[in-house]
Amino acid sequence: MNIILLDSEEVSGNLATLRDHRAEHIVKVLRCAQGDRVTVGILNGKTGYGIIKELSRAKPCVVTLELNLQGYPEAVAPVDVMLALPRPIVFKRIISHLTALGVDRVFVVNAAKVEKSYWDSSVVQDQGWKRHVREGLEQAVDTRLVHFSFYRGFKPFMQDVIPAIKDRYEQMLVAHPHGGEGLATIYKAGIAPVLVALGPEGGWNDYELEQMRIQGFDQFSLGNRILRVETAVAALHGSISMLRTAELQSRLNH
Amino acid sequence: MNIILLDSEEVSGNLATLRDHRAEHIVKVLRCAQGDRVTVGILNGKTGYGIIKELSRAKPCVVTLELNLQGYPEAVAPVDVMLALPRPIVFKRIISHLTALGVDRVFVVNAAKVEKSYWDSSVVQDQGWKRHVREGLEQAVDTRLVHFSFYRGFKPFMQDVIPAIKDRYEQMLVAHPHGGEGLATIYKAGIAPVLVALGPEGGWNDYELEQMRIQGFDQFSLGNRILRVETAVAALHGSISMLRTAELQSRLNH
Repeated sequence: MNIILLDSEEVSGNLATLRDHRAEHIVKVLRCAQGDRVTVGILNGKTGYGIIKELSRAKPCVVTLELNLQGYPEAVAPVDVMLALPRPIVFKRIISHLTALGVDRVFVVNAAKVEKSYWDSSVVQDQGWKRHVREGLEQAVDTRLVHFSFYRGFKPFMQDVIPAIKDRYEQMLVAHPHGGEGLATIYKAGIAPVLVALGPEGGWNDYELEQMRIQGFDQFSLGNRILRVETAVAALHGSISMLRTAELQSRLNH
Repeated sequence: MNIILLDSEEVSGNLATLRDHRAEHIVKVLRCAQGDRVTVGILNGKTGYGIIKELSRAKPCVVTLELNLQGYPEAVAPVDVMLALPRPIVFKRIISHLTALGVDRVFVVNAAKVEKSYWDSSVVQDQGWKRHVREGLEQAVDTRLVHFSFYRGFKPFMQDVIPAIKDRYEQMLVAHPHGGEGLATIYKAGIAPVLVALGPEGGWNDYELEQMRIQGFDQFSLGNRILRVETAVAALHGSISMLRTAELQSRLNH
């Protein structure tokens, strides 16, 4: 936990009193005393620091912070993700990776090779994903909740949702092993975000790839190596961020 | 398992007979029958396919393959990694990520913020890492064993080992949050591999960073986001591969 995240309702004036695992973290892991500073942030709001005004070490720990909020976190990389629902245990790790790396929206969709039972997992049904988003933000020192949405029908997602949102994107990309050109070749420079589609273990099927082609997704190859989704998600985020940075720099230099 | 990996000693003429989990995988997961083809590779050797000559479904499954080996896997990205020993459960996942993404050598070193007990884990002591390398290769369809070596003394590694190997590298890099310039700025174009140092959760300490500076490591910033090592390893591999590809393309175009 590299930042203590607060809901805006927890703040009263410039004070917030914590009684849960966050108070315990401040007392036991950070080993703070009265007068110490900790990094804090309001969910979907500003970050800054909190000065510890009161602190009780007895269980349950209680900590009162006086907040000094200065500004907003830096903008995230302009990457949104369309993700075939992974196995729940892997999905939890992917949520943490994506939130830590920084994305704005994640569209979780069905695919032929997604097992039906995955949709019944608590991470989807009971909004269990929210806890993992929060952990990712606490890791990466960010306050902006990543927006996850779930689409159990692949076809309605492609035919109704994508046409309604595609204008937001500079480019829509789908990663596929042996999919033709590499990312650096097909990547289009621009300002708007990109949407990257990542398939299930076992890949998208031909119908799904065709639907994406019709909607304007550009297919690119990850090379001959077949990556787990968990590995691919971070490697692709790194690649796209790097292309954007390099492009931005060359624009600034000319 | 996207490739069946064989030790060269298992091959006799152009035949190999399997009696372990690989045979079971061919029978139960791939559901192969006599005459079917499966992707095979020899560890540190060629890849190709095997035709199933004999197959017994009764436990223990037995499969005899006739091998047709055609060529070597594509070269991996020219990235070596220096890694502060992570928590064992995380280390296992990092081994799989790195092997799947493709690296040649991984130097695992001690650091002030590495817990001593990590060195006693079976993944280090009993060469448990080899199993995870193999899983990474089976995932990524590669045959080249990644070479892991372990250095329990940080100082002797920096003062004795690094000077002996630094000439192999175009550049040695160390990632650090708030570490100054970004990767795209400090990256030096070139042909030789790069060595990237990744710290423990909690980061390198000042002494360690100073030792790396003395040896010629260039420090770069991952931005204000603090990433878990597991996330950073894949994101950085993606970033560096992309810089190399972009550079190669611009060289081909000029």
